Amino acid sequence: MRAANTSAAGSTAHVACADPPPASDVGVEATVDGDAEALARATWSRLAEPADAHACALVGRLGATAALDWLTHEALDADGEPRPAPRPPLPPHGDAARASADWATAAARWAPRLQGLDIRRELDVLERLGGSLLIPTDPGWPTGLNDLERPPHCLWVRGDPALLVARRGAPDVALPRAREDLVPDGPGAGCALALVGARASTDYGEHVTFDMASGLAAKGVVVISGGAFGIDAAAHRGALRTGVTVSVSAGGVDRLYPAGNADVLEEVIATGALVAEVPPGCQPGRHRFLTRNRLIAAMSDATVVVEAAWRSGALSTAHHALEVGRPVGAVPGPVTSMASVGCHRLLRQGAVCVTDADEALELVAPLGATDPDAAKAADPANAGSGLLDGLDGPAAVVLDALPARAEASVESIVRAAGLTERETIAALGLLELEGRVERRGAAWRRARGHR
Amino acid sequence: MRAANTSAAGSTAHVACADPPPASDVGVEATVDGDAEALARATWSRLAEPADAHACALVGRLGATAALDWLTHEALDADGEPRPAPRPPLPPHGDAARASADWATAAARWAPRLQGLDIRRELDVLERLGGSLLIPTDPGWPTGLNDLERPPHCLWVRGDPALLVARRGAPDVALPRAREDLVPDGPGAGCALALVGARASTDYGEHVTFDMASGLAAKGVVVISGGAFGIDAAAHRGALRTGVTVSVSAGGVDRLYPAGNADVLEEVIATGALVAEVPPGCQPGRHRFLTRNRLIAAMSDATVVVEAAWRSGALSTAHHALEVGRPVGAVPGPVTSMASVGCHRLLRQGAVCVTDADEALELVAPLGATDPDAAKAADPANAGSGLLDGLDGPAAVVLDALPARAEASVESIVRAAGLTERETIAALGLLELEGRVERRGAAWRRARGHR
Repeated sequence: MRAANTSAAGSTAHVACADPPPASDVGVEATVDGDAEALARATWSRLAEPADAHACALVGRLGATAALDWLTHEALDADGEPRPAPRPPLPPHGDAARASADWATAAARWAPRLQGLDIRRELDVLERLGGSLLIPTDPGWPTGLNDLERPPHCLWVRGDPALLVARRGAPDVALPRAREDLVPDGPGAGCALALVGARASTDYGEHVTFDMASGLAAKGVVVISGGAFGIDAAAHRGALRTGVTVSVSAGGVDRLYPAGNADVLEEVIATGALVAEVPPGCQPGRHRFLTRNRLIAAMSDATVVVEAAWRSGALSTAHHALEVGRPVGAVPGPVTSMASVGCHRLLRQGAVCVTDADEALELVAPLGATDPDAAKAADPANAGSGLLDGLDGPAAVVLDALPARAEASVESIVRAAGLTERETIAALGLLELEGRVERRGAAWRRARGHR
Repeated sequence: MRAANTSAAGSTAHVACADPPPASDVGVEATVDGDAEALARATWSRLAEPADAHACALVGRLGATAALDWLTHEALDADGEPRPAPRPPLPPHGDAARASADWATAAARWAPRLQGLDIRRELDVLERLGGSLLIPTDPGWPTGLNDLERPPHCLWVRGDPALLVARRGAPDVALPRAREDLVPDGPGAGCALALVGARASTDYGEHVTFDMASGLAAKGVVVISGGAFGIDAAAHRGALRTGVTVSVSAGGVDRLYPAGNADVLEEVIATGALVAEVPPGCQPGRHRFLTRNRLIAAMSDATVVVEAAWRSGALSTAHHALEVGRPVGAVPGPVTSMASVGCHRLLRQGAVCVTDADEALELVAPLGATDPDAAKAADPANAGSGLLDGLDGPAAVVLDALPARAEASVESIVRAAGLTERETIAALGLLELEGRVERRGAAWRRARGHR
């Protein structure tokens, strides 16, 4: 984690982006060692669209600084125009000429945004908002993102970046103090769980989401969602009531989108975190919502979809989760509700049926830490009140064979139950001990309350 | 199949129970070859409770007639009293003395009901009701029952017994004519599907059940259920609207239980079948409901549970279905509904999520015969109307980069989209072909209806 301030160096434990020396016109050739890579990654987050395959490969293999060097010195000419046949920065898989052309195409995509770019301006905006920039080498980087085929170059964070470190995501990293303070002990503490769904949600879906989110957050789970209307907003609101939540934005973190959720997003920033892979100033374009969803999936230890139509962005989050090996849960709803069709589709595809916070938690802490089914069986609300509950074998048959209100002789019970006299008498004795039957002389009857 | 008439022989294609010679006091020592076994099986269905392990083993291994011989000649003395140490009728698994005692206990269970029993009286009742008796050697026997560890000794049937022969259950048996007449062609024709659920159902559950049952029956599926209030009744009613249905009773078929469902059960008998493993006159005791459920499961090619509380008899039907290797489906509902808790429990245990008749049919005809998901995707009701639907790659990015209502130059689109000029122009051309964008001189804008 690094603060985005440009004030005097050393204001945080990490080297801050303090007073970078004059950079080139691309604003990245900083010479402060630790920060050059951060500035370069921030620059790449502006140059390339999220999940741009060539940019991800280039930055991932060479590092962001060397990748920018290649772009400015090899792929573009002195005027910033793409060269037709640059030296490929990575060994080509197949035909070298084809690879060179592909890289030329990629560079031509990035070049227009390079003109006049100085990423320090965006970092200044972030600083004024009290935010910070995270890059993969930071201890606070949510390492779950590294499971992505096309990880983000950096994260632009408002709020507390320590909340992004999930226990599973970074097993060797000590939890930052803030995180330890916030989370209670428990099987879910330190886990992150995505709770996502449709914008066109129903009252039912929002109600279930709110309850699930507040139940999870109360157990120390960081609830991650996308800040949209409907299910996302209900997830944030529910989590805010009892704990912390993280919102992953499709646009820059300087704009709280959608504006109608500005109040809840302000609260998210105040006690949780708002995160984006694109710099301040970037629009939340529609295709960025889809690429954003991979971040939600990879930052979380599991994803639960509450309501989703047949085609829904929430399903893309679920598919990203499967791609990076995270469990996926789906909350059922009425089969007559179009808002639940996508969830039922997921259930048919193998998603786990999740009906409450405990079952959602089971997705991320499955090692016997919790057993929602056992808990439900023990719940008095689910305790059967049926006549034969808790009985089987001869006792159930005998009790069943007793008339509802009249008395019966052992002989008639024997005949009705289809048991031997010895079995019948033994069963009657057991039932008498349990207070389910009463003896009157030679006759038996059901006890009051067991008729 | 055999008619239960005692009138002149030959009134049906099968040897009827016509004029059996005087039987012993146990009413089974008929000498008409084909019928002795039928009478003996009918007798066993009265002597032993359903699923009595010893009776099932004895009848299954020796045949019903020999089993009765053992009972009357070896296990009981001349007065009909159990002998303390009878010769075991089957080779003992372990300790011989223990086995002998176990068999003595079993015989003592059966002996009280043997006194004065003449099963022809029950067969007379069945005949007066126009019913028939089925035993496993009959061509019309639903062979799915043979998958049970403790199959019924016989079936007492009112209505059309030909409906019990499912294609899967009896692949080598030609469908009786009645069945062929009734079922339309289609992937489900000749299949049998159990549709079961809670008595304490909701309007939602009954509505879904009715629709699913009528949808299945319309495709030629025989819908099997238990005749109870709630989901069972809705299943029968829905199936009656478009096709045929079979009800499996926990008591004798002479009494229509529960009385409140007499109207629907009369309809079931008139066009379908009412079936029991116990003779007329037997009470539908509570434990018989649970043993009855194994018949529903085994007679069906799959079981779907619509609504079920945490503890519900419908869940026992599902578990029986799993035991005999039949697929199990569960219909989801609101997680806030106690009536759906059992279904969600099944889904968590691996049941298939089923939301309509097509998906239920998929359980029994899964070989590409139907593909509910493909059908849903093709359904215009599920066709997305989103701006980017059907688009991906550069076209989606470019369309997204276009302002909602203003015009934009290629250069500004290039910058906003993060694509090369060539990619952008190609995408614009594609979008123009699809009528999603319009060109005005050098500027582009979204077409009306695509904003």
